[in-house]
Amino acid sequence: MTTDEKALKLHADLNGKLSTETKCPVKTREDLSLAYTPGVAAPCRKIADHPEDVYKYTWKSNTVAVVSDGSAVLGLGNIGPKAAMPVMEGKAVLFKEFGNVNAVPICLDTQDPQEIIDTVVRIAPGFGGINLEDISAPRCFEIENKLKELLDIPVFHDDQHGTAIVVLAGIINALKVVGKKKEECKVVVNGDGSAGIAISKLLLRYGFKDLTICGLYGILSKDIENLNWAQEEMIPLTNPEGKNGTLADAMKGADIFIGVSAPNIVTAQMAASMNPDAIMFAMANPVPEIMPDVAKSAGVRIVGTGRSDFPNQVNNVVAFPGIFKGALEGRAKQITEEMKLAAALAIASLIPEEELNENNILPEAFHPDVAKAVSEAVKSHITNS
Amino acid sequence: MTTDEKALKLHADLNGKLSTETKCPVKTREDLSLAYTPGVAAPCRKIADHPEDVYKYTWKSNTVAVVSDGSAVLGLGNIGPKAAMPVMEGKAVLFKEFGNVNAVPICLDTQDPQEIIDTVVRIAPGFGGINLEDISAPRCFEIENKLKELLDIPVFHDDQHGTAIVVLAGIINALKVVGKKKEECKVVVNGDGSAGIAISKLLLRYGFKDLTICGLYGILSKDIENLNWAQEEMIPLTNPEGKNGTLADAMKGADIFIGVSAPNIVTAQMAASMNPDAIMFAMANPVPEIMPDVAKSAGVRIVGTGRSDFPNQVNNVVAFPGIFKGALEGRAKQITEEMKLAAALAIASLIPEEELNENNILPEAFHPDVAKAVSEAVKSHITNS
Repeated sequence: MTTDEKALKLHADLNGKLSTETKCPVKTREDLSLAYTPGVAAPCRKIADHPEDVYKYTWKSNTVAVVSDGSAVLGLGNIGPKAAMPVMEGKAVLFKEFGNVNAVPICLDTQDPQEIIDTVVRIAPGFGGINLEDISAPRCFEIENKLKELLDIPVFHDDQHGTAIVVLAGIINALKVVGKKKEECKVVVNGDGSAGIAISKLLLRYGFKDLTICGLYGILSKDIENLNWAQEEMIPLTNPEGKNGTLADAMKGADIFIGVSAPNIVTAQMAASMNPDAIMFAMANPVPEIMPDVAKSAGVRIVGTGRSDFPNQVNNVVAFPGIFKGALEGRAKQITEEMKLAAALAIASLIPEEELNENNILPEAFHPDVAKAVSEAVKSHITNS
Repeated sequence: MTTDEKALKLHADLNGKLSTETKCPVKTREDLSLAYTPGVAAPCRKIADHPEDVYKYTWKSNTVAVVSDGSAVLGLGNIGPKAAMPVMEGKAVLFKEFGNVNAVPICLDTQDPQEIIDTVVRIAPGFGGINLEDISAPRCFEIENKLKELLDIPVFHDDQHGTAIVVLAGIINALKVVGKKKEECKVVVNGDGSAGIAISKLLLRYGFKDLTICGLYGILSKDIENLNWAQEEMIPLTNPEGKNGTLADAMKGADIFIGVSAPNIVTAQMAASMNPDAIMFAMANPVPEIMPDVAKSAGVRIVGTGRSDFPNQVNNVVAFPGIFKGALEGRAKQITEEMKLAAALAIASLIPEEELNENNILPEAFHPDVAKAVSEAVKSHITNS
């Protein structure tokens, strides 16, 4: 069977990859009287008097909603809320399996940003965090920003920040391997959507100075028209020489290429035009911007992709379960830039210096310590100020 | 320890009575590739092409949302969404334990009917049914009616219909014990809120002819002012002689009294004024409208309450898990009056004729066959026309 056939069979056999389960079996009248009426009135009264007690007496303490409108699902595009359900259920499975965090898929029958915001605010009382997923740019920025303002629980758009954190972790280790300093590197990010912009912001925050974003129009600069506000915001922060040109122009003399764009759009010539000891993260899925063997033959030293069948997989699953685990355990009200940087450093630190090499810059999804390391790092950077 | 103390300890120890669990362990790269990317794209594509396949490939097939705004919680009143969480989690526990149906507590940070309607419609794609809970009247009627119009999944306000179904089941059996016919009985329902109105409607639908509703104002009639629209609607259906007066007046010569009102408001004298072989369901919680021993001493033949420490407990848990189980298994689009009547008859039929007596008219919560009997009855009455 092909992977598609196996996946269809698995999904049909399971009829849902997730279930809700009871932590208190109800076998006797007394069980019933404690878990439900009349006993349940006691924790209700406590919470009515002290709203924070909702964390003590209910699953809010360890439960996130995985929210999507189905507008930008995997490589599938705008397939809507029902068709997005298998992905959101899968995400909920990963939350549980990797972080021991309860997660509920919530697929919304609206793609209006204000309606999405309103809906998430209204369902928030019973959840300890909101993981936004597969919402198209630039709507996702507006929705996330507004929800962060309105809610006192962490809101995290994994496509943006999860990806950015893992990319940064990989870059941190790749720089150790090639012996370059972040301040001296020229970075090209190809992709001006949610992931590309979030990666760019986190790399700049980490301390990169020379970063250029490219879109379908080529290099992002003040001369490009018809940008959305999120892209406009990046102009003063990026492309320090104010260049115009194509992606090929941008890549000449670059040290780092990060692709969150489209299959096969980087040629061997473009890769060969980069600086010596170049680093490429070609994360288009399932077919990368350039195949690793082609990039390597062109002289690139380190190549990462989104795929598990090549070395250096950039996989969000090393980030988001631990991030929410730490945020929930520490009762964070937000996931801040400091927490994201701490998470990236924690992920990077899981590869001991002596094991670092061109093909080993990121821990695997199944690394046994990753969720704990990330959650501890995140917890120790909670300020709630 | 008191029940309250035990319940607080249980809730704090568990830190949530519910969890989400994974039906497909993710231990290997292949597991990950089937449950998540890239394999998950295959069921997504199937659902995008055939939206009904969401029932085949996701937990929608067996999952309900337990939705409340916290406006009318148990005997606690309007305690808001966070304080309502222990009850909604408890309800979700009962769905799972008694019906093997997944259930997710959704407590809403709004009490505006239109906002509640909008929110439930928007989160509906990932759920197979909506159980409304502890929403105050008359808002609950409007919300339920509108949601039934807008959604193609079952919507069921348990405080109304669950209660009505179990009351009807008990009345069916009580009539067998006392040997009266429904067409010849005078019924008094004390309580003009969501439960009282729903019980009245279902009893009328079942075939009772002479039913009178009482509220704080006494007998519901065209002469009463300041009624809400749901109460107004009941005027032409009830009180066939158009009487005015007090609850005491209504109870004189009645065969059946059903109380969903307040503690201790029925006196021994009022009970004694009923017809011979009277039936009383005094369901105010935790203190009934009249204590069973007082009613019995006054000559009432059969007494039921909401409490587990007296005979004939009217407990919704014999109804709602099986109702949703049947509705989900049969892919019902609505829960119709026929399905409710069938559920009541199924519940009643669980007490064999030879075991029926004054103290045994309703199956216990833990009756091993109840969810199956109810779900089969409900399933066999699905029309989806």
